[in-house]
Amino acid sequence: MEILEELKAFRCKDIPYSRVLSSMCTIPHPIAVKAHVEFINTNLGDPAIFRGSAELEREVIGMIGKLLHHSNAKGYVTSGGTEANVQAVRAFRNLKKVERPNVVVPESAHFSFDKAGDVLRVEVRKAKLDDEFKVDVGDVERLIDENTVGIVGIAGTTALGQIDPIEELSKLALEKDVFLHVDSAFGGFVIPFLDLDVKFDFELEGVSSVTVDPHKMGLATIPAGCILFRDSSFLKALVVETPYLITEEQFSLTGTRPATGVASTYAVMKLLGFEGFRRIVRDCIKATRYLVEKMNDLGFEPVIEPVMNVVCFKCEKAFEIRNELYKRGWVISAIRNPRALRFVVMPHANFNVIDEFIEELKKVLRKF
Amino acid sequence: MEILEELKAFRCKDIPYSRVLSSMCTIPHPIAVKAHVEFINTNLGDPAIFRGSAELEREVIGMIGKLLHHSNAKGYVTSGGTEANVQAVRAFRNLKKVERPNVVVPESAHFSFDKAGDVLRVEVRKAKLDDEFKVDVGDVERLIDENTVGIVGIAGTTALGQIDPIEELSKLALEKDVFLHVDSAFGGFVIPFLDLDVKFDFELEGVSSVTVDPHKMGLATIPAGCILFRDSSFLKALVVETPYLITEEQFSLTGTRPATGVASTYAVMKLLGFEGFRRIVRDCIKATRYLVEKMNDLGFEPVIEPVMNVVCFKCEKAFEIRNELYKRGWVISAIRNPRALRFVVMPHANFNVIDEFIEELKKVLRKF
Repeated sequence: MEILEELKAFRCKDIPYSRVLSSMCTIPHPIAVKAHVEFINTNLGDPAIFRGSAELEREVIGMIGKLLHHSNAKGYVTSGGTEANVQAVRAFRNLKKVERPNVVVPESAHFSFDKAGDVLRVEVRKAKLDDEFKVDVGDVERLIDENTVGIVGIAGTTALGQIDPIEELSKLALEKDVFLHVDSAFGGFVIPFLDLDVKFDFELEGVSSVTVDPHKMGLATIPAGCILFRDSSFLKALVVETPYLITEEQFSLTGTRPATGVASTYAVMKLLGFEGFRRIVRDCIKATRYLVEKMNDLGFEPVIEPVMNVVCFKCEKAFEIRNELYKRGWVISAIRNPRALRFVVMPHANFNVIDEFIEELKKVLRKF
Repeated sequence: MEILEELKAFRCKDIPYSRVLSSMCTIPHPIAVKAHVEFINTNLGDPAIFRGSAELEREVIGMIGKLLHHSNAKGYVTSGGTEANVQAVRAFRNLKKVERPNVVVPESAHFSFDKAGDVLRVEVRKAKLDDEFKVDVGDVERLIDENTVGIVGIAGTTALGQIDPIEELSKLALEKDVFLHVDSAFGGFVIPFLDLDVKFDFELEGVSSVTVDPHKMGLATIPAGCILFRDSSFLKALVVETPYLITEEQFSLTGTRPATGVASTYAVMKLLGFEGFRRIVRDCIKATRYLVEKMNDLGFEPVIEPVMNVVCFKCEKAFEIRNELYKRGWVISAIRNPRALRFVVMPHANFNVIDEFIEELKKVLRKF
């Protein structure tokens, strides 16, 4: 059909994931796509109609809660990590009821916290990082005042994949009586499958909420984020009344919202299980190490030893190289501080893709 | 496969649209589903990667802009009407920069404005309705003060499908130097296809922004809302910087977001064209009239002569009847003021569905 051909022509101009080494999204698992299509007509904005889908969402929240050491966590499947982070800050702000609220986030926090700050009219204070690019807990403490409604720790930073000292932040949150939100949008489906001796989730008493995105390393279809709260009081702080519906209130940021991400998350988690995710994460880590080797051979040094499948290499000409690669159809990312080339080694970035990339990079480097 | 069978079992508990007479969503057009699937892996949150999808979004914004008398409107495809309304109020608030901002909305405004008020920390003032359930422009004027950043008119209210006097609101907005947002989430794909002598969109000089949801009467897949602004200054008021991406800023409320709704909207608009939508709207209006006849026969009177395919019938026992119907697997809606049974006659609600509903209603009425 002609219209579908037109659409395919637009779609062909998108850069395929096999040329993308910067995104935290990837090709969803085939079962995720099947599950998505099965739920394509659903709307969780009206859970009295879509009661099966709503039941499935509760199931998924329980499964992810269990993964994060709190099977009784309360939350919902969001449009993504941004909605999840906005809703956490909104809940904190609404519960604390101070006149000029602020949150303290690491300098490494994702830009969705700047967005949350503007949207919610909450001041976003940025705490310094230490020389490992983890948040400096002393600086977080210094920034907390009587108007601080919450602090934020990142478990898997966007730039470097670093994990903040969430255990210390948890103690600080309890001591200062502020909420602690953990943004593990990326790390939530990575850290539990690494052999790391690190606590980052609800097993820490001070953690009030966690963001984790199934549409990143959970291999679900977009849109599928997730916000989990320790108890229902946080959700209650978000509700508005919903006339016209049979259910009486709504806590989500969006109104109409599909259950496609719920279904695709469920399908992948059930199919892969803990062992399946462990295997996928292991492969991504292997590919990351392979990339580090190849980059070492070209004289690049990582900014930090990669903690997960995100890695940056010091490079003064990072932006120029990124732009030249983009012209040639390859997408990597560049960061400012420190100036570096940044890679996210998602499941689609296998050894072959890395080999092809390195060949292209060599050509580009000859120009600099 | 076993997991897909499990998912189907959940999906089977959802009430099928053939038993739903309350939702503003419907079964998407078959071509919308095909287009959606083609774009299932896309992410407009990273338009440098998904540049074909981003181009298609600009195309769709142009098409909807043209429908609303402003082919050069600036905007994007949102997660739905709520995000669109929130973003309009946010843009107004950010541009006007007053200390304690307020917006004036009709009492009939959708609950997403209450949500926007809480999220954005903007006071939401509610203007009275006249005896036709249109907003009382005099009351809107009375509520405007030096902290008012914008006013809102509804073109197709959720409860009654009524259209506010947008022309008068436009004059008032210009006179008072406040922005005017029109929420035509439902009406945007209905009013242009009715033979009504009513102006509600950008052809009115005072209109700054319009919400219209392709996933309602546009027969696109969920999620597909749309916010259109008169010019790019409103989008500029929404941007945050986006490190890690090649593009430098982002104005959407969500981060990662699918292009599925963009593709499905494009496909349906191209396939149906103006004449196709006119036919669909005509059929919905016919079915609405048929429902009114049948309800008249049972002694029910509409609250107002239906303007579009939304209709309410006065009924003291509206909530009890709604609840009893729900127990029997039928979903209608009830409103409080005036107490009434509420129906949205979407394309799936054809004459057969209405006949079946009326038979069930007769049985229910015997109990009251």
